Amino acid sequence: MSTQPLNNGSVPQRLAQTRELMSREGIHALLVPSADPHLSEYLPGYWQGRQWLSGFHGSVGTLIVTPDFAGVWADSRYWEQATKELEGSGIELVKLQPGQPGPLDWLAEQTPEGGVVAVDGAVMAVASARTLGGKLEGRGARLRTDIDLLSEVWSDRPTLPDEPIYQHLPPQATVSRTEKLGKLREVMKGRKADWHFIATLDDIAWLFNLRGGDVSFNPVFVSFALIGQKQATLFVALSKVSAELRAILEQSGVTLRDYNEVADALHAVPAGTSLLIDPARVTAGLLDSLDSGVKLVEGLNPTTLAKSQKSLADAEHIRQAMEQDGAALCEFFAWLESAWGRERITELTIDEHLTAARMRRPGYVSLSFNTIAAFNANGAMPHYHATEEEHAVIEGDGLLLIDSGGQYLGGTTDITRMVPVGTPTEEQKRDCTRVLKGVIALSRAQFPKGILSPLLDAIARAPIWAESVDYGHGTGHGVGYFLNVHEGPQVIAYQAAAAPHTAMQPGMITSIEPGTYRPGRWGVRIENLVLNREAGKSEFGEFLKFETLTLCPIDTRCLVPVLLTEDEKLWFNGYHAEVRERLAPLLDGAALEWLNTRTAAI
Amino acid sequence: MSTQPLNNGSVPQRLAQTRELMSREGIHALLVPSADPHLSEYLPGYWQGRQWLSGFHGSVGTLIVTPDFAGVWADSRYWEQATKELEGSGIELVKLQPGQPGPLDWLAEQTPEGGVVAVDGAVMAVASARTLGGKLEGRGARLRTDIDLLSEVWSDRPTLPDEPIYQHLPPQATVSRTEKLGKLREVMKGRKADWHFIATLDDIAWLFNLRGGDVSFNPVFVSFALIGQKQATLFVALSKVSAELRAILEQSGVTLRDYNEVADALHAVPAGTSLLIDPARVTAGLLDSLDSGVKLVEGLNPTTLAKSQKSLADAEHIRQAMEQDGAALCEFFAWLESAWGRERITELTIDEHLTAARMRRPGYVSLSFNTIAAFNANGAMPHYHATEEEHAVIEGDGLLLIDSGGQYLGGTTDITRMVPVGTPTEEQKRDCTRVLKGVIALSRAQFPKGILSPLLDAIARAPIWAESVDYGHGTGHGVGYFLNVHEGPQVIAYQAAAAPHTAMQPGMITSIEPGTYRPGRWGVRIENLVLNREAGKSEFGEFLKFETLTLCPIDTRCLVPVLLTEDEKLWFNGYHAEVRERLAPLLDGAALEWLNTRTAAI
Repeated sequence: MSTQPLNNGSVPQRLAQTRELMSREGIHALLVPSADPHLSEYLPGYWQGRQWLSGFHGSVGTLIVTPDFAGVWADSRYWEQATKELEGSGIELVKLQPGQPGPLDWLAEQTPEGGVVAVDGAVMAVASARTLGGKLEGRGARLRTDIDLLSEVWSDRPTLPDEPIYQHLPPQATVSRTEKLGKLREVMKGRKADWHFIATLDDIAWLFNLRGGDVSFNPVFVSFALIGQKQATLFVALSKVSAELRAILEQSGVTLRDYNEVADALHAVPAGTSLLIDPARVTAGLLDSLDSGVKLVEGLNPTTLAKSQKSLADAEHIRQAMEQDGAALCEFFAWLESAWGRERITELTIDEHLTAARMRRPGYVSLSFNTIAAFNANGAMPHYHATEEEHAVIEGDGLLLIDSGGQYLGGTTDITRMVPVGTPTEEQKRDCTRVLKGVIALSRAQFPKGILSPLLDAIARAPIWAESVDYGHGTGHGVGYFLNVHEGPQVIAYQAAAAPHTAMQPGMITSIEPGTYRPGRWGVRIENLVLNREAGKSEFGEFLKFETLTLCPIDTRCLVPVLLTEDEKLWFNGYHAEVRERLAPLLDGAALEWLNTRTAAI
Repeated sequence: MSTQPLNNGSVPQRLAQTRELMSREGIHALLVPSADPHLSEYLPGYWQGRQWLSGFHGSVGTLIVTPDFAGVWADSRYWEQATKELEGSGIELVKLQPGQPGPLDWLAEQTPEGGVVAVDGAVMAVASARTLGGKLEGRGARLRTDIDLLSEVWSDRPTLPDEPIYQHLPPQATVSRTEKLGKLREVMKGRKADWHFIATLDDIAWLFNLRGGDVSFNPVFVSFALIGQKQATLFVALSKVSAELRAILEQSGVTLRDYNEVADALHAVPAGTSLLIDPARVTAGLLDSLDSGVKLVEGLNPTTLAKSQKSLADAEHIRQAMEQDGAALCEFFAWLESAWGRERITELTIDEHLTAARMRRPGYVSLSFNTIAAFNANGAMPHYHATEEEHAVIEGDGLLLIDSGGQYLGGTTDITRMVPVGTPTEEQKRDCTRVLKGVIALSRAQFPKGILSPLLDAIARAPIWAESVDYGHGTGHGVGYFLNVHEGPQVIAYQAAAAPHTAMQPGMITSIEPGTYRPGRWGVRIENLVLNREAGKSEFGEFLKFETLTLCPIDTRCLVPVLLTEDEKLWFNGYHAEVRERLAPLLDGAALEWLNTRTAAI
């Protein structure tokens, strides 16, 4: 090669090298998604190629490079960040909007006849590869998934993580791995599948009652699993598993094999047998290993639905975790009020003190995502994260948005609260009040069991839409049980497809987090987690209702109480009464005083 | 044939003859949908084969006959009626439920390998035939669409209708056919289609500004249309068109051909050209006529979207039609109040007097559907229709549900009101109040322009779900402009797929009609029509809001006003004030007095 992959410090240099390789291979367009072989949300550094090549560090985005164009497709959460980060890179921000064509459509439109689009098959889901391949074929173009251009350019690529794997044990693990495997095999029988292959890390961690530390915030480990009616094989870097754990796993019928042997194992699945996979959750590269005589059975991973339906025993642990998390927040807020004017507070200080408060709580393991402490204009970026280089000092007047969460052995938390700084304006308070109305409307809702969750979104948004306001993200995501803070299959978002697998079932935990974002000014979001509870059966069918799990005051100094209806006030005061009752026993001193003050009825 | 098709008076006899033919042809299952070559909602008698063969007269249902089974699939609106009508017929009612497998799935499951399923290709949409064919192929079975078994058994089959065609003229027709054809051709160009074939009668009537009387309630005429960039051909029974009208049409570039020549015309579409069709709105039988060299462009008929977006001028005419319709209702209700106890009132009397009141109004053409006047238990059947043989006398206590509408030259109406009879019970009044809450919640809603309409349903249902109540039908359907009372593409129903074409656009008219049905006891439904109006553009995008078009008091004697919130009362009193203001000038005497009394503020 004429070019050494060394002098590639800047994004334009990296792009130039990439284009040279593309030209050598006759590739018209390179697609770099935000993805890894497990199609995870949080990617180990090894798989953050899109970030490396584009310089855009948002967690979701798709890069396309052609000889004369480079663009990152990102949704509205990332527009501010991407605009900043892409400046001067030669890469355009393409704003992804619901209902508008996405990057795959763009490729289908722009690739010339006979053109070749390349994507690393190891990081593209079978379903996406099929869609893109189909679109390209329709134009006489072609998709290549057998080449990883990036690895040739990426000189300082990080290595794969190597954190130890440990068990999620009783009492918090309320169902044994043997029982989970047994139920999975029943579902496989029902689907007439001899085998089931899982690439998604939270499904694997849940199924085997194991946890790890390979990616930030999600207590999972890099692995694959192949389940048969008699066998269960877990593919991991063997160095991560202690001899003791290995023995325990083998006793429960789980065989360990090296992570890198997964393609061989898939290749060895006998022709004539059937394999259940989720084409959206397995990559095209891996599926290529299969013998063509293996019959594919396609559908959602059964563990995804099973995992989402927390048991009654799980719910008890979650309530306790929520109490601990709420108590940590009260301690933090009490500190914050005492510190105003006494010390310099920045968005980073907020993160430090809040994390420290959580760390003091029993059962705490880690944060469940990067704390978002965003003051005024920074709050208008829903996924803002303060850094050493760029962060705001919190002073003057306005709104501080804090979105944070913890991983506890007995559950995962995720909460957003608005903090008044100085004197918030009337408009800021109206924004907070309107968002609160959305939270209340959906929190109080009852709905038919099995309803497709995207259909519930309008209940939260109606009071917000009523004043010509909307927000670009979903209202709610599923939340794991000491697992990923974002999990499926349910999602409360009118932008999401109301697919059958999004049906609401008892035991699911979902966030309710409407918002309002005024770019360059401020952002508002209020978020609680709620649990799907049975609400009984009438002559019209079975119904579900939400139990609000999150326990923390919603600061009335950010509100215009007169804008709340009597019904809304009733919910609000009831919520605060419960928060006070359940958190008070865990608090004393300034934190208890803060709790009592901030939960006074309005 | 050994059996003469004469002695087939009873359903079991008809089934027996059908099975004999099936056996002769080697057919395992016969599918008889409720459909005609135009995939209309209301079918001419000639196409009511499913009704004739099964004895079930509900307007929607699918019959399947196999050697040892016969079943009608019907949704919850028809369960009571179907149970009655199918009794003793040897045909089972199979209850269609949202999310459950339907008749096509049943066939895919039950047809043996090598089996043949027959359906008359003339009455099955291309899309359905593809779906069913695909499912059957997957089992090694086969679909035949080239045989019409029914016509061999059906001795007294009605003839095709032959009502004259007339023009929809200005001022009520606010856009000329030339302009409509021009816009359609623009859309065709955009879709790269040389031709467009339309089989749906309301699309054709709208496009050509023509109306007819071939089916009940919908002012359409049996026809097809084939549009090119320079030609427009209308296929109708030529006897329906006067020489004068024919000349007018020819002047605007519309050629007439006989209805029966449509297959020839399709066959003559030149290979190498492209034809736009909606596979859900064209039958498989007709498409078979095409040369295989014709390139299909598939999508919603452009006229379906164009037709749904009423112009500002249309809206003015509709408001006037609504005033006339509301005035007719007031006259009817005033008569009803004066007649209680003085004369015998049955569900049929209601229909007679209400229809007579409408007929006295200027611009009235016909009813827009069969009046539903349903007392107590009959009201629990959402699509009940009283007959000479079976109808209730209205006496004692309870609720009378009246769902009715008219076709006016300037618009189509559809309204449901609850009438108190004697003293309704507290439970009945609570049902009415809860349903009213649903109407109010959605009527007041504002929402993003372009939102998929099924996603709005939860706003209407939330107050109803809150008390563990639900209803099996959609909350709202599109309504035509002096056209079909049911039209697409929008639909407010959580049971419907939130497809891109359901997006809400300005000018669409939709019903809001939540309900509560207590089988064997009573039914409640309250229905207004609403118009999508622009609600302005904010920094968050463009919004729409509803203008309530329907003008008629909602009887407070069926309500428990204390259950309404202050906001709901505000809407309710505001609505009644507008109803009073706009209807009073059209009324006098008892009707005016009734209006004033029934619109008093609560």
